[in-house]
Amino acid sequence: MRFDLVTLFPDFFASPLSSGLLGKAFSKAIATVHCTNPRDFTTDKHHRVDDEPYGGGVGMLMKPEPIFAAVESLPALPRRAVVLMTPQGKPMHQAMFQQFAIDYKQLVIICGHYEGVDERVLNLVTQEVSLGDFVLTCGEIPALALLNGVIRLLPGTVGKAESLKAESFEDGLLDFPQYTRPAVFREWDVPAVLLSGNHQAIAQWRKAQQIERTRDRRPDLYDQWLEDQSSQESYDSETPEG
Amino acid sequence: MRFDLVTLFPDFFASPLSSGLLGKAFSKAIATVHCTNPRDFTTDKHHRVDDEPYGGGVGMLMKPEPIFAAVESLPALPRRAVVLMTPQGKPMHQAMFQQFAIDYKQLVIICGHYEGVDERVLNLVTQEVSLGDFVLTCGEIPALALLNGVIRLLPGTVGKAESLKAESFEDGLLDFPQYTRPAVFREWDVPAVLLSGNHQAIAQWRKAQQIERTRDRRPDLYDQWLEDQSSQESYDSETPEG
Repeated sequence: MRFDLVTLFPDFFASPLSSGLLGKAFSKAIATVHCTNPRDFTTDKHHRVDDEPYGGGVGMLMKPEPIFAAVESLPALPRRAVVLMTPQGKPMHQAMFQQFAIDYKQLVIICGHYEGVDERVLNLVTQEVSLGDFVLTCGEIPALALLNGVIRLLPGTVGKAESLKAESFEDGLLDFPQYTRPAVFREWDVPAVLLSGNHQAIAQWRKAQQIERTRDRRPDLYDQWLEDQSSQESYDSETPEG
Repeated sequence: MRFDLVTLFPDFFASPLSSGLLGKAFSKAIATVHCTNPRDFTTDKHHRVDDEPYGGGVGMLMKPEPIFAAVESLPALPRRAVVLMTPQGKPMHQAMFQQFAIDYKQLVIICGHYEGVDERVLNLVTQEVSLGDFVLTCGEIPALALLNGVIRLLPGTVGKAESLKAESFEDGLLDFPQYTRPAVFREWDVPAVLLSGNHQAIAQWRKAQQIERTRDRRPDLYDQWLEDQSSQESYDSETPEG
């Protein structure tokens, strides 16, 4: 999968893209990342990429021309999405990552900066995506999250083990508590059930923990999970057996 | 404000922390960032930081001892939070950033890795924070988002202009569309009202756009906003004038 980062700060990505798991995806050629700087596509002598907003207001906006020129300079693979990182977009979630990983061969990610981008840039864009309901100084961090979350879903990037684990997140519940050696650390013991060797008891304990934690910490996810359970049950009861 | 990043991959942060706006915060000594690697606190010859989960399951967990030792090696300022980045935590939002910026002088941020951390690490932790409902390969990206979002709120980091703008996000609505020069770009004109010079008309248009976009794109935020409006109105009507 090809990723094109349209960014005023390509240097930002140097160390995150060379460390850890993503490094593996790049060395195995599962994903490639290219940075394109709109500043290189300015035609004035000051290489200006921003300007004041029409109608007044604080801060500067990214001008449309350099972004259009940068995106239009890129090759366009047949299955391409052009994503603008913006707090006005759709909040990222796991199903979105899966869709990107399955549906596209090229993701062009435009990183906003300053107070935002000229609205006409949306004419280039197929999706507006937000990292969450908060303000950061730049779109580079949200771009990194999208890149990382999508690349780890590409076949061959993470081991089979980790992939399976991700699926457990996708059941709509928070994860269960996990413990590793030592069995006793300071005054805290690992729960006895986990040392029991009784796989059925362990599975039951974990599922109960997942449900309890989700109910306590994320009532929003819990309500959704309950709803999904009951619609699944009514589907099951309506489906003839055999 | 002091930030301590407890991370197995300190190199990850090299380029993000030296670019752009955060560089300014560091050069003006508004914020300092220190990385501490749990691997440096292992006592076995293989410097092992992870191990298999009790009770079976896929992937590896971060062991508790190196994380405890790393955090306990840090100075503890009087107003300190110890944050674990985990998908099981409270999702980040703007009010959380503001609270961190106001209430604390030191944020210790523990970056999870592998399949997660031993649950007993929570004995060290004052807050569990999540970037969102998705899976990434590492806690370093969420840590970077938290760091950036909090630092930009510290006095002196961003210009007054940008600070004011942030407050507009905080009214619970998405931002309005923004335009800059040129007034006509390809076949797209800037909306006439923004060129009118009529400040009242511009303010009305922008507010209407904010409400419309929020309703169309984020019914969840819109419902919350409506609720806040009506409780504000009933508060206003109950408050005696003068």
